Formats: sequence, C-alpha cells, structure tokens
Amino acid sequence: MTHPAPPLMSVAALQTFLAQRFPQIGQQGEGALLVEAVGPMTCRMRLKIGDQHLRPGGTVSGPTMFLLADVALYVAILAQIGPVELAVTTSFNINFLRRPAPRDLIAECRLLKLGRKLAVGDVALMSEGESAMVAHATGTYALP
Amino acid sequence: MTHPAPPLMSVAALQTFLAQRFPQIGQQGEGALLVEAVGPMTCRMRLKIGDQHLRPGGTVSGPTMFLLADVALYVAILAQIGPVELAVTTSFNINFLRRPAPRDLIAECRLLKLGRKLAVGDVALMSEGESAMVAHATGTYALP
Amino acid sequence: MTHPAPPLMSVAALQTFLAQRFPQIGQQGEGALLVEAVGPMTCRMRLKIGDQHLRPGGTVSGPTMFLLADVALYVAILAQIGPVELAVTTSFNINFLRRPAPRDLIAECRLLKLGRKLAVGDVALMSEGESAMVAHATGTYALP
Amino acid sequence: MTHPAPPLMSVAALQTFLAQRFPQIGQQGEGALLVEAVGPMTCRMRLKIGDQHLRPGGTVSGPTMFLLADVALYVAILAQIGPVELAVTTSFNINFLRRPAPRDLIAECRLLKLGRKLAVGDVALMSEGESAMVAHATGTYALP
Repeated sequence: MTHPAPPLMSVAALQTFLAQRFPQIGQQGEGALLVEAVGPMTCRMRLKIGDQHLRPGGTVSGPTMFLLADVALYVAILAQIGPVELAVTTSFNINFLRRPAPRDLIAECRLLKLGRKLAVGDVALMSEGESAMVAHATGTYALP
Repeated sequence: MTHPAPPLMSVAALQTFLAQRFPQIGQQGEGALLVEAVGPMTCRMRLKIGDQHLRPGGTVSGPTMFLLADVALYVAILAQIGPVELAVTTSFNINFLRRPAPRDLIAECRLLKLGRKLAVGDVALMSEGESAMVAHATGTYALP
Repeated sequence: MTHPAPPLMSVAALQTFLAQRFPQIGQQGEGALLVEAVGPMTCRMRLKIGDQHLRPGGTVSGPTMFLLADVALYVAILAQIGPVELAVTTSFNINFLRRPAPRDLIAECRLLKLGRKLAVGDVALMSEGESAMVAHATGTYALP
Repeated sequence: MTHPAPPLMSVAALQTFLAQRFPQIGQQGEGALLVEAVGPMTCRMRLKIGDQHLRPGGTVSGPTMFLLADVALYVAILAQIGPVELAVTTSFNINFLRRPAPRDLIAECRLLKLGRKLAVGDVALMSEGESAMVAHATGTYALP
C-alpha cells in the first residue's frame, strides 16, 4: 500500500470550520466538541460531557455517541481532502459495547477508503482515560 | 405465523413513561417527541422539528434522525412488553436516503423479532406528509 | 411520492442475464436461484435449498442467506434500470432473526432509493410457506 | 483495561473442530479454510481462493468475503471460550472497499466485546501480501 498523503487541514483550521459552518454543534455546549489530533487518514476528537448528554443512571446516551462518531468521520474526511461542506452521511452502523462512564468521550477515527465518490471509515469510542471501547462505528459519506 | 399479541401499554402510558424516566428527551423541546400510535409489534412517533434539529441548508441533522429512530424502536418494545427501563441498544444501522424537509419527522417502527434476550426492529423515517422515506434504520435492543 | 416506473426487465430476461454473466451462481445447484416476480422497485427470488446450503442441525447457513439477499437486491436494481454488469455491493447489513427451516428460501426485496450513484434496498427472507422473517437485510450498491 | 485472557484453543484444535462440525466448510475446497494464528481476543484466517469463489472479472465474490469474515469471528470466539457449537450470528455489517485480487484472502479478527450473552468483533479482509483492506466487517454472535 502506498502511504496516505498527509492531511490538508490542521486541527485549528478544522475547529474553525466546524464552528463557522455548524453552529448547531454549539448545542453540545460551548467548546464541547474538540478536534484533538489529525494524521494521515486519521483524527481524534473529544466531546466534553455535560448533563444534556446523560441518560438515567449517569451514562452517555446513544444519540450522543452517534453524534460524536459521525462528526469524527466527517472531520477525518475534511482533514484529508479540505473543506467540503456538502459531504453527507449515507450509512452508519454502530455497536454499543459497554456503558460509558459519565466522563469525556474520545473518538479515534481512521479512514478505510477515500474514493472519488465514497469515503468509508471506522471509529472507536472510549471514555477518557480508558482503553476499552464503549462503542464502535462504521460509516460511509458520499463526496460531492 | 401466529398473530402478535396486542400491546400492553397505551399511547398515553408510553408518553408518561418517557417524560418521567427520560427527562433529557425534553431537550428536544417541550412536547417535541410524541407517541402517535401503537399496534401489535408496531408504533408511530413524531418529532416536532425546531431550530436545534437543523443543519445548514435547512435539513434535519443525522443525529436527530438517529435519535428518533432509536426512541421509536424502544417505544415499540415497551409497548409490547411493558415498562422496562433497562433495555439498551446493542447495535444500530441507518441508511440516509433523501434530504428531509425542515418539517416534522415521522417514524414508523415494526418489531421483526421479540425474543427473550434480544429485540430487533426496523424504522422508516418520513418528512410529514410525504411517503418517500428519508432514512431507514434497523436496530437491536438487549432485554434485561 | 411519484409512482415508480415499471421495471425494464422481465423475469425471463433477468434469469437469462444471471445465467450468462454469473456462471458461479450455478454452484448453488442447477436452476437453484430463481427470479419469481418483479414489480416497480421490487422483486421476489427463491433459492432451492440443497445439502450444500445447510449447517449442522439442518438449518440454512448464514452465508447462504447473505448470498440470496445480495443477489435479490442486485436483481431488483437490474429489473429497474436494465442490465448493468458493473453494479457492486458497497455495504450490507443483515440481522438473523430465526432458524430457517431446511426448505426453500424466499427473498422479498424492495428498493428504498434508486439514485444516480447509489441504490439502497432492503430484503426480507422467509422459509417457504411461512410469513415470519428468518433474516432481514439492508444493502447499498454503487452504480456505474 | 485488564489484559484479555489467553485463548483456550490452539490453532490445531480449532482446525479440527471446524473440520468435524462443519463439513460444509469443505465445500470451499479441501483444506481451503485455514486458521493461521490465534491470540488473546484475536485470530487470523486464510481462504485459499479457487474458481468457485470468483466473480466475472476475476474478483472474489461478496458472499465469499462474508463467509470468511463470519467464520473468522466464530473462530475468534471459540478460541477464547472453548468449543461452543451453538453460538449463532445475530447481525453482520460489511463494507466492501476495493476489488480483491484473485488470490488468497486473509482475515484479521479481533473481539471488541466478549460478554455472557453477546460477543462483538470486527474483521479486516486483505488480499494476500497487501495491507489495504478489501472489506471490513463487524458482527455479533449470541452465546448459548
């Protein structure tokens, strides 16, 4: 396999792009959704967990995990190909593995394929400071 | 096939259960998540769409569609077996088919299997007043 | 929703196309994979079950069910848009619901979306003569 | 995370178990389906590709990839918990990423969760000698 190209967008550029184009991401709380690192075909994101993300019993809700995994895949694609507002999720599969702790959620995403029309990636979600996955997702984006 | 049993919980009982046990559902907006109908192994729900559910371009966000589909599957299970707080989603697959209109979102759910340990169902999501699906989901819940 | 167009290919034309272009379908046994009906955005197929499709305990194997569901989705697409050899499966999700009987397997497929680049459909699999699904699948094909 | 326990079954024991209990695996060709390695929560398998696995254009068929991924997940579970004939696949999601070469197919499987009732794992499929995945699968088995 040829080595993947380095990403075109930096952590700071990605964070700015998200804030400008997706104001509703601010609903997660001011500064709650953070791009922490990008690399060739990979990224790491963090969601600062607040009350609005919790379910009874103090565990992070499923839709919150879906949201973070979906955004992480989008960010990994943007990082690699540059700002593309019109990429849209076409399918998403998520397995919930363990109850997340009521702590920040970390997403590690890697792109498995970056074609002309489709990008596919998977995402591991972990509670901060733990290595066991709380959820694993695989998704596809259609590229414009 | 034997006919499925009628549901054990009414629309009103389901709505009350959701409000009491899942206060964070109120985040979708006061009275935004409505159980509209239940039947044997089926239910229909509505999400009143507000600004917080929209993406740039005026379309309903993916996490919003995931949320509604996930809750609809949970409600279809509750309706059939009675109030069970501890049922948890184990896997979920969703295909996004068309851009939803910025209108209420309707979910039609049917249970495909209701076993002792696992329940499986699928969910069709439509913009109000249209028959074309905007998304289709399949999910599994583990039963306590 | 506008009514879908009628299919472009007949049952006989589809059966001939499969036999000519996919000789390995013959591995399922001579005449084992049958197109039974086509309609607007739908098709029904049958797999005649032989010893090679069974698992210990006399149940149809998972890969056999996957094969039938995948072919049914392909046939529903071909029926609608005409013979297109190069359509390829990009993703597939299947839930196994009940042990199939050691009898013929029936697939009922409907297309949920038929776009320019992607087609999405779902498939219900039943043992012949029963209405309860043994498996439910959702898949995506990329169109050339 | 605590370290996973070492596997209970060896490569040789797994190969013998498959041959005795799943004679239809022999349909893939004599000795075609090989357990190559097991580790804590992981295994690697090989499918020797023959004519019966190929599609027009000399590429490995989708059902063949599904079969190998499904068996690899089963073997990873068996390796870890010992011979359990009655584990059954409950759901499976597979993304097809690139055309496989007409060469042996390698599966690298890891278990993401091994609970009392459910096991979840993912599988990377590669053509022999290449690091780029041709397909990626995630599946769930119900344990007896």
